[in-house]
Amino acid sequence: MNVDYINPFLVTIINILSTMAQTEAKPGKPSVKEGSSAFGDVTGVIGLTGENVKGSFSITFTESSILSIASKMLGEKMDTLDGQIVDVVGEITNMVSGGARKLLAEQGNKFEMALPSTIMGKNHTIVHSAKNAVIVLPFETEDGDFFVEICLDS
Amino acid sequence: MNVDYINPFLVTIINILSTMAQTEAKPGKPSVKEGSSAFGDVTGVIGLTGENVKGSFSITFTESSILSIASKMLGEKMDTLDGQIVDVVGEITNMVSGGARKLLAEQGNKFEMALPSTIMGKNHTIVHSAKNAVIVLPFETEDGDFFVEICLDS
Repeated sequence: MNVDYINPFLVTIINILSTMAQTEAKPGKPSVKEGSSAFGDVTGVIGLTGENVKGSFSITFTESSILSIASKMLGEKMDTLDGQIVDVVGEITNMVSGGARKLLAEQGNKFEMALPSTIMGKNHTIVHSAKNAVIVLPFETEDGDFFVEICLDS
Repeated sequence: MNVDYINPFLVTIINILSTMAQTEAKPGKPSVKEGSSAFGDVTGVIGLTGENVKGSFSITFTESSILSIASKMLGEKMDTLDGQIVDVVGEITNMVSGGARKLLAEQGNKFEMALPSTIMGKNHTIVHSAKNAVIVLPFETEDGDFFVEICLDS
Protein backbone atom coordinates (compact mmCIF):
# COMPACT_ATOMS: atom_id res chain seq x y z
CA MET A 1 0.00 0.00 0.00
CA ASN A 2 1.17 3.48 -0.89
CA VAL A 3 2.52 5.20 2.24
CA ASP A 4 1.01 8.48 1.04
CA TYR A 5 -2.29 7.00 2.13
CA ILE A 6 -1.26 6.60 5.78
CA ASN A 7 -0.35 10.09 6.93
CA PRO A 8 -3.69 11.75 6.17
CA PHE A 9 -5.42 9.29 8.50
CA LEU A 10 -2.80 9.66 11.20
CA VAL A 11 -2.83 13.46 11.14
CA THR A 12 -6.64 13.62 11.11
CA ILE A 13 -7.11 11.28 14.06
CA ILE A 14 -4.66 13.17 16.23
CA ASN A 15 -6.32 16.50 15.35
CA ILE A 16 -9.86 15.32 15.89
CA LEU A 17 -9.23 13.69 19.26
CA SER A 18 -7.25 16.72 20.39
CA THR A 19 -9.90 19.28 19.41
CA MET A 20 -13.09 17.29 20.05
CA ALA A 21 -12.05 15.28 23.09
CA GLN A 22 -9.02 17.06 24.57
CA THR A 23 -7.24 13.72 24.24
CA GLU A 24 -3.63 13.34 23.24
CA ALA A 25 -3.30 10.26 21.03
CA LYS A 26 0.33 9.17 20.79
CA PRO A 27 0.97 7.19 17.60
CA GLY A 28 3.07 4.03 17.83
CA LYS A 29 4.94 2.46 14.97
CA PRO A 30 2.79 1.61 11.94
CA SER A 31 3.06 -2.01 10.91
CA VAL A 32 1.78 -4.41 8.34
CA LYS A 33 -0.93 -6.53 9.89
CA GLU A 34 0.11 -10.15 10.34
CA GLY A 35 -2.07 -13.14 11.11
CA SER A 36 -2.75 -12.47 14.77
CA SER A 37 -4.99 -9.56 15.47
CA ALA A 38 -5.42 -7.03 18.17
CA PHE A 39 -8.73 -7.15 19.99
CA GLY A 40 -11.01 -4.35 21.08
CA ASP A 41 -14.48 -3.67 22.42
CA VAL A 42 -15.92 -1.10 20.00
CA THR A 43 -15.01 -0.72 16.32
CA GLY A 44 -16.09 1.80 13.73
CA VAL A 45 -15.63 0.67 10.14
CA ILE A 46 -16.27 2.47 6.87
CA GLY A 47 -15.89 1.44 3.25
CA LEU A 48 -13.91 3.55 0.78
CA THR A 49 -14.27 3.49 -3.00
CA GLY A 50 -12.40 5.52 -5.59
CA GLU A 51 -11.58 5.50 -9.26
CA ASN A 52 -8.34 3.69 -8.63
CA VAL A 53 -8.69 2.26 -5.16
CA LYS A 54 -11.15 0.49 -2.92
CA GLY A 55 -10.74 -0.40 0.68
CA SER A 56 -11.86 -0.02 4.24
CA PHE A 57 -10.85 1.92 7.30
CA SER A 58 -11.50 0.88 10.89
CA ILE A 59 -10.82 2.25 14.33
CA THR A 60 -10.98 -0.14 17.28
CA PHE A 61 -11.15 1.11 20.85
CA THR A 62 -10.68 -0.62 24.15
CA GLU A 63 -13.56 0.04 26.54
CA SER A 64 -11.46 2.29 28.80
CA SER A 65 -10.19 4.47 25.96
CA ILE A 66 -13.57 5.10 24.33
CA LEU A 67 -15.37 5.74 27.64
CA SER A 68 -12.79 8.41 28.41
CA ILE A 69 -12.92 9.94 24.92
CA ALA A 70 -16.74 9.91 24.85
CA SER A 71 -16.95 11.45 28.35
CA LYS A 72 -14.81 14.34 27.16
CA MET A 73 -16.68 14.75 23.87
CA LEU A 74 -20.11 14.67 25.48
CA GLY A 75 -19.19 16.60 28.60
CA GLU A 76 -20.64 13.98 30.91
CA LYS A 77 -19.28 10.89 32.61
CA MET A 78 -19.82 7.81 30.43
CA ASP A 79 -19.36 4.47 32.15
CA THR A 80 -21.21 1.98 29.94
CA LEU A 81 -20.87 0.90 26.34
CA ASP A 82 -24.30 1.95 25.11
CA GLY A 83 -26.05 3.65 22.20
CA GLN A 84 -24.40 6.98 22.94
CA ILE A 85 -20.98 5.35 22.60
CA VAL A 86 -22.07 3.81 19.29
CA ASP A 87 -23.00 7.29 18.06
CA VAL A 88 -19.67 8.74 19.20
CA VAL A 89 -17.68 5.98 17.45
CA GLY A 90 -19.75 6.37 14.27
CA GLU A 91 -19.10 10.11 14.37
CA ILE A 92 -15.36 9.70 14.96
CA THR A 93 -15.17 7.17 12.10
CA ASN A 94 -16.99 9.57 9.79
CA MET A 95 -14.90 12.57 10.80
CA VAL A 96 -11.57 10.77 10.49
CA SER A 97 -12.33 9.29 7.10
CA GLY A 98 -13.84 12.58 5.95
CA GLY A 99 -10.74 14.50 7.05
CA ALA A 100 -8.39 11.95 5.49
CA ARG A 101 -10.48 11.98 2.33
CA LYS A 102 -9.98 15.74 2.02
CA LEU A 103 -6.20 15.48 2.45
CA LEU A 104 -5.98 12.54 0.05
CA ALA A 105 -8.01 14.42 -2.56
CA GLU A 106 -5.46 17.25 -2.37
CA GLN A 107 -2.82 14.64 -3.28
CA GLY A 108 -4.93 13.59 -6.26
CA ASN A 109 -6.33 10.45 -4.64
CA LYS A 110 -10.07 10.89 -4.68
CA PHE A 111 -12.43 8.44 -3.09
CA GLU A 112 -15.98 8.21 -1.81
CA MET A 113 -16.96 7.15 1.68
CA ALA A 114 -19.74 4.69 2.46
CA LEU A 115 -21.69 4.94 5.73
CA PRO A 116 -19.94 3.90 8.93
CA SER A 117 -20.99 0.83 10.89
CA THR A 118 -20.15 0.32 14.54
CA ILE A 119 -19.52 -3.05 16.13
CA MET A 120 -19.82 -3.55 19.85
CA GLY A 121 -18.80 -6.70 21.69
CA LYS A 122 -16.18 -7.63 24.27
CA ASN A 123 -12.88 -8.65 22.68
CA HIS A 124 -13.82 -8.84 19.05
CA THR A 125 -11.38 -8.70 16.19
CA ILE A 126 -11.67 -7.34 12.66
CA VAL A 127 -10.13 -8.69 9.48
CA HIS A 128 -10.03 -6.71 6.23
CA SER A 129 -10.25 -8.68 3.00
CA ALA A 130 -7.55 -7.07 0.91
CA LYS A 131 -5.05 -8.27 -1.64
CA ASN A 132 -2.66 -5.59 -0.48
CA ALA A 133 -1.26 -5.24 3.00
CA VAL A 134 -3.39 -3.97 5.84
CA ILE A 135 -1.61 -1.23 7.78
CA VAL A 136 -2.10 -1.03 11.53
CA LEU A 137 -1.53 2.23 13.39
CA PRO A 138 -1.51 1.80 17.17
CA PHE A 139 -2.27 4.75 19.43
CA GLU A 140 -1.87 5.31 23.15
CA THR A 141 -3.97 7.64 25.26
CA GLU A 142 -3.70 8.14 28.99
CA ASP A 143 -6.86 6.08 29.44
CA GLY A 144 -6.08 3.18 27.13
CA ASP A 145 -5.16 2.21 23.64
CA PHE A 146 -6.89 2.13 20.31
CA PHE A 147 -5.78 1.14 16.87
CA VAL A 148 -6.55 2.06 13.32
CA GLU A 149 -6.45 -0.24 10.34
CA ILE A 150 -6.36 0.91 6.75
CA CYS A 151 -6.50 -1.23 3.68
CA LEU A 152 -6.67 0.08 0.16
CA ASP A 153 -6.37 -2.08 -2.92
CA SER A 154 -5.30 -0.38 -6.13
CA MET B 1 -35.43 3.11 2.12
CA ASN B 2 -36.63 2.16 -1.35
CA VAL B 3 -37.99 -1.42 -1.25
CA ASP B 4 -36.50 -2.03 -4.70
CA TYR B 5 -33.17 -2.22 -2.91
CA ILE B 6 -34.17 -5.17 -0.72
CA ASN B 7 -35.08 -7.92 -3.15
CA PRO B 8 -31.76 -8.07 -5.02
CA PHE B 9 -29.99 -8.84 -1.74
CA LEU B 10 -32.59 -11.38 -0.66
CA VAL B 11 -32.57 -13.23 -3.98
CA THR B 12 -28.78 -13.27 -4.20
CA ILE B 13 -28.25 -14.64 -0.69
CA ILE B 14 -30.68 -17.49 -1.20
CA ASN B 15 -29.07 -18.37 -4.55
CA ILE B 16 -25.51 -18.23 -3.31
CA LEU B 17 -26.09 -20.33 -0.20
CA SER B 18 -28.06 -22.83 -2.22
CA THR B 19 -25.44 -23.25 -4.96
CA MET B 20 -22.24 -22.78 -2.97
CA ALA B 21 -23.23 -24.41 0.31
CA GLN B 22 -26.24 -26.61 -0.46
CA THR B 23 -28.00 -24.66 2.28
CA GLU B 24 -31.62 -23.63 2.17
CA ALA B 25 -31.96 -20.19 3.74
CA LYS B 26 -35.58 -19.46 4.60
CA PRO B 27 -36.24 -15.73 4.72
CA GLY B 28 -38.32 -14.36 7.59
CA LYS B 29 -40.23 -11.10 7.55
CA PRO B 30 -38.11 -8.03 6.73
CA SER B 31 -38.36 -5.34 9.35
CA VAL B 32 -37.10 -1.88 10.12
CA LYS B 33 -34.36 -2.16 12.71
CA GLU B 34 -35.37 -0.74 16.07
CA GLY B 35 -33.15 0.13 19.01
CA SER B 36 -32.43 -3.35 20.24
CA SER B 37 -30.20 -5.42 18.03
CA ALA B 38 -29.78 -9.04 17.21
CA PHE B 39 -26.44 -10.52 18.17
CA GLY B 40 -24.15 -12.84 16.30
CA ASP B 41 -20.67 -14.32 16.34
CA VAL B 42 -19.28 -13.50 12.89
CA THR B 43 -20.24 -10.53 10.73
CA GLY B 44 -19.21 -9.53 7.24
CA VAL B 45 -19.70 -5.86 6.41
CA ILE B 46 -19.11 -3.93 3.21
CA GLY B 47 -19.54 -0.29 2.28
CA LEU B 48 -21.55 0.79 -0.76
CA THR B 49 -21.25 4.09 -2.60
CA GLY B 50 -23.17 5.28 -5.63
CA GLU B 51 -24.02 8.47 -7.44
CA ASN B 52 -27.26 8.80 -5.54
CA VAL B 53 -26.84 6.53 -2.55
CA LYS B 54 -24.34 5.49 0.08
CA GLY B 55 -24.69 2.81 2.65
CA SER B 56 -23.55 -0.44 4.09
CA PHE B 57 -24.52 -4.07 3.97
CA SER B 58 -23.82 -6.65 6.66
CA ILE B 59 -24.48 -10.31 7.21
CA THR B 60 -24.25 -11.67 10.75
CA PHE B 61 -24.05 -15.39 11.46
CA THR B 62 -24.47 -17.38 14.61
CA GLU B 63 -21.57 -19.75 15.22
CA SER B 64 -23.65 -22.85 14.42
CA SER B 65 -24.96 -21.48 11.13
CA ILE B 66 -21.61 -20.37 9.73
CA LEU B 67 -19.78 -23.54 10.81
CA SER B 68 -22.36 -25.57 8.92
CA ILE B 69 -22.29 -23.32 5.83
CA ALA B 70 -18.47 -23.22 5.77
CA SER B 71 -18.24 -27.00 6.20
CA LYS B 72 -20.41 -27.46 3.13
CA MET B 73 -18.59 -24.80 1.10
CA LEU B 74 -15.13 -26.12 1.93
CA GLY B 75 -16.02 -29.80 1.85
CA GLU B 76 -14.52 -30.48 5.26
CA LYS B 77 -15.88 -30.38 8.79
CA MET B 78 -15.31 -26.96 10.37
CA ASP B 79 -15.73 -26.77 14.13
CA THR B 80 -13.88 -23.59 15.15
CA LEU B 81 -14.26 -19.94 14.28
CA ASP B 82 -10.85 -19.38 12.71
CA GLY B 83 -9.16 -17.70 9.76
CA GLN B 84 -10.82 -20.02 7.26
CA ILE B 85 -14.23 -18.95 8.55
CA VAL B 86 -13.17 -15.30 8.21
CA ASP B 87 -12.29 -15.99 4.56
CA VAL B 88 -15.61 -17.71 3.93
CA VAL B 89 -17.58 -14.84 5.46
CA GLY B 90 -15.57 -12.26 3.50
CA GLU B 91 -16.23 -14.22 0.33
CA ILE B 92 -19.98 -14.56 1.02
CA THR B 93 -20.18 -10.82 1.78
CA ASN B 94 -18.42 -10.02 -1.48
CA MET B 95 -20.51 -12.42 -3.53
CA VAL B 96 -23.82 -11.28 -2.10
CA SER B 97 -23.09 -7.58 -2.52
CA GLY B 98 -21.63 -8.23 -5.97
CA GLY B 99 -24.73 -10.16 -7.05
CA ALA B 100 -27.09 -7.56 -5.59
CA ARG B 101 -25.03 -4.81 -7.24
CA LYS B 102 -25.55 -6.42 -10.63
CA LEU B 103 -29.34 -6.71 -10.14
CA LEU B 104 -29.58 -3.16 -8.80
CA ALA B 105 -27.58 -1.83 -11.77
CA GLU B 106 -30.15 -3.43 -14.08
CA GLN B 107 -32.79 -1.36 -12.24
CA GLY B 108 -30.71 1.77 -12.86
CA ASN B 109 -29.26 1.94 -9.34
CA LYS B 110 -25.52 1.79 -9.79
CA PHE B 111 -23.12 1.66 -6.91
CA GLU B 112 -19.56 0.70 -6.11
CA MET B 113 -18.53 -1.78 -3.45
CA ALA B 114 -15.71 -1.21 -0.97
CA LEU B 115 -13.73 -4.15 0.43
CA PRO B 116 -15.43 -6.41 2.96
CA SER B 117 -14.34 -6.57 6.58
CA THR B 118 -15.13 -9.47 8.88
CA ILE B 119 -15.72 -9.15 12.60
CA MET B 120 -15.36 -12.11 14.89
CA GLY B 121 -16.34 -12.13 18.56
CA LYS B 122 -18.92 -13.90 20.67
CA ASN B 123 -22.22 -12.06 20.81
CA HIS B 124 -21.33 -8.81 19.12
CA THR B 125 -23.79 -6.42 17.60
CA ILE B 126 -23.57 -4.06 14.66
CA VAL B 127 -25.14 -0.63 14.25
CA HIS B 128 -25.29 1.18 10.90
CA SER B 129 -25.11 4.96 10.98
CA ALA B 130 -27.83 5.95 8.56
CA LYS B 131 -30.36 8.72 8.37
CA ASN B 132 -32.76 6.36 6.66
CA ALA B 133 -34.12 3.17 8.12
CA VAL B 134 -31.97 0.09 8.43
CA ILE B 135 -33.74 -2.97 7.04
CA VAL B 136 -33.21 -6.32 8.74
CA LEU B 137 -33.77 -9.57 6.86
CA PRO B 138 -33.76 -12.62 9.14
CA PHE B 139 -32.97 -16.04 7.71
CA GLU B 140 -33.34 -19.55 9.10
CA THR B 141 -31.22 -22.53 8.11
CA GLU B 142 -31.45 -26.01 9.55
CA ASP B 143 -28.27 -25.33 11.51
CA GLY B 144 -29.08 -21.91 12.89
CA ASP B 145 -30.03 -18.39 11.99
CA PHE B 146 -28.34 -15.46 10.36
CA PHE B 147 -29.48 -11.99 9.49
CA VAL B 148 -28.75 -9.38 6.91
CA GLU B 149 -28.87 -5.65 7.41
CA ILE B 150 -29.01 -3.13 4.61
CA CYS B 151 -28.90 0.61 4.93
CA LEU B 152 -28.78 3.00 2.02
CA ASP B 153 -29.10 6.75 2.36
CA SER B 154 -30.23 8.66 -0.72
